[in-house]
Amino acid sequence: MIAPAIVGVQLGERSYSIQVGSGVLAAPASYAQLPRGSGAVIVTNETVGALYAKRLADAVKHVYPRLEIVAVPDGEAFKTWQTLQEILDGLVDAQADRTTTVIALGGGVIGDLAGFAAACYMRGIGYVQVPTTLLAQVDSSVGGKTGINHSAGKNLIGAFHQPLAVVADVDVLDTLPQRELVAGLAEVIKYGAVADDAFLTWIEANLAALLARDKAALVQAVTRSCHIKAAVVATDEREAGRRAILNFGHTFAHAIETGTGHGTWLHGEAVGCGMAMAADLSVRLGLLQPSHAARITAVVGAAGLPLRAPELGPKTYLDLMRLDKKATAGSLRFVVLEAPGRAALRTVDPALVEATIAEFGGGTRYKV
Amino acid sequence: MIAPAIVGVQLGERSYSIQVGSGVLAAPASYAQLPRGSGAVIVTNETVGALYAKRLADAVKHVYPRLEIVAVPDGEAFKTWQTLQEILDGLVDAQADRTTTVIALGGGVIGDLAGFAAACYMRGIGYVQVPTTLLAQVDSSVGGKTGINHSAGKNLIGAFHQPLAVVADVDVLDTLPQRELVAGLAEVIKYGAVADDAFLTWIEANLAALLARDKAALVQAVTRSCHIKAAVVATDEREAGRRAILNFGHTFAHAIETGTGHGTWLHGEAVGCGMAMAADLSVRLGLLQPSHAARITAVVGAAGLPLRAPELGPKTYLDLMRLDKKATAGSLRFVVLEAPGRAALRTVDPALVEATIAEFGGGTRYKV
Repeated sequence: MIAPAIVGVQLGERSYSIQVGSGVLAAPASYAQLPRGSGAVIVTNETVGALYAKRLADAVKHVYPRLEIVAVPDGEAFKTWQTLQEILDGLVDAQADRTTTVIALGGGVIGDLAGFAAACYMRGIGYVQVPTTLLAQVDSSVGGKTGINHSAGKNLIGAFHQPLAVVADVDVLDTLPQRELVAGLAEVIKYGAVADDAFLTWIEANLAALLARDKAALVQAVTRSCHIKAAVVATDEREAGRRAILNFGHTFAHAIETGTGHGTWLHGEAVGCGMAMAADLSVRLGLLQPSHAARITAVVGAAGLPLRAPELGPKTYLDLMRLDKKATAGSLRFVVLEAPGRAALRTVDPALVEATIAEFGGGTRYKV
Repeated sequence: MIAPAIVGVQLGERSYSIQVGSGVLAAPASYAQLPRGSGAVIVTNETVGALYAKRLADAVKHVYPRLEIVAVPDGEAFKTWQTLQEILDGLVDAQADRTTTVIALGGGVIGDLAGFAAACYMRGIGYVQVPTTLLAQVDSSVGGKTGINHSAGKNLIGAFHQPLAVVADVDVLDTLPQRELVAGLAEVIKYGAVADDAFLTWIEANLAALLARDKAALVQAVTRSCHIKAAVVATDEREAGRRAILNFGHTFAHAIETGTGHGTWLHGEAVGCGMAMAADLSVRLGLLQPSHAARITAVVGAAGLPLRAPELGPKTYLDLMRLDKKATAGSLRFVVLEAPGRAALRTVDPALVEATIAEFGGGTRYKV
């Protein structure tokens, strides 16, 4: 085991640490600082649970002799009220009290569900994120966003609830399907694009190593991504302002995901295409050099992420994007790039958005 | 209209004001300071909505030209997942966004439901409490506790989410059934008991005026109760410590309510009996003079609140109280009085609790 990198998330009394490394999931030391309380409940899905729940249970049992496991079905389709209720019922059955710790073992769906359950149970109990996908390690497990989907929108129901700790083990990425690894790289690229051009350059140079799951490269990518996310979240925990830059590419992505039916595109795939689209939009706004947009597009494509938007037609895109949580009173707001490594939130003329949609092939389906 | 009394709740960036008065619900000035945003959604029940929704809508329309009303069934039995979902669906249908304000018009059930919906919708939007019962005016509308019931316990699922403002109009108490007015007085008495012996003396002297719904007396009782609650909440927003004293009588009360089936006893009735029991327990612990416990019992009885506990048998009481949110790892914890106007949280020997239960007639049902 390589000594883990530690990333601090500075949020006053809600501060916590992210441990990134190879072998950290199964290392008892990773959990030694957690509050004892009356016990813990591991929340996982059936797929990940079968692979890692036993190993995790062995590693935490010195802190939590009283330990229960709640396993729910695997998949974004289960990020629902019903699954949330199952988890809460599981906490009741485990006789969880205010001092019980929830441990979320899985990808973003499990982290969001288990985190929201912890946020709601007795008005909030502690939880730990043990993310098992690259996407969750670099994004959803850090920053306290939790929630479930509603038929009217992804993550429409949820809470800000910071974890007690995050344990991100790159070893578990060995069992991740390649398509999901690639999807996770979209968010890694995002951090370079919006906040750290030198990191973007590093990603370009190390993309082959990341795609080959080189452990040292993955630890570095996850650590640097978490550093950037932690710094942004520390300045704007509840996304009143700057934190929105982390949604670069996400307004297009949410429209793609909703328009094609959730699960058709992976979130990271939609974010990849959405970032290329948002970079294109930034050029149309006169904010960004075309050469930098081309660089974003190139690295997204080189990672194996899609660059052609689904043909939903412009009206569907615009309608879906007006429902985005960043939108207010029907206006269209996008995270755009003002320069390499610098992003901002802007209200954008729909005609420019339509031009970007057409450029990426998304505008041709519905001819009226 | 009497000029309203203003009580400030000091919680940093989550600070807000409570306006207490006669006529404040229908006064546009009561809402003039609220953030405009994109509109508002009044959440109410069918009973209260029929009486006051139109009046409230007229008063807020200068701030919220875009206004929708969501009405749910009336009663504690509807403080459920299902009703919460109905309210959230209503927010979606109203195209609520992050800047929409929820206005909770009703008693504690509506305040808890609407507040929790606001806490969850898009991970938290603003809401205003317009409490229409005495209980809600002096207790549940202030302090940010929101939630729903679970078959395993009251308010087991919820969030701390502070309102933007509270508008407490004693005029609406004119339509409150006398039994509910009396139930609300239990919480008023509680504030005197745990934090302000001079207020307890004032209540004793003004009980007849309060029971006759004298407006000036009600404004004074609500204002002073809110002052005490605000001061306690300001020191301990999330009930990590001192705020627990506001649960004086509530551990017994929750057992009474759950043991008899929710809705048989009103919450305030159970709190009334529970306070007399907790005072008795305080005497048994050697903390309180019997004469002061007798004073608590006398004012509870004079208000018309019950003083005989339901005959659930000691085992049922103890089992239910071990499920209380204040309990940890099966221990029994109670808010007790250490002196007139001074309360504390103590772990208590079950034998003493059984003696109190027997004293109040609750221990005789199940003979084994």
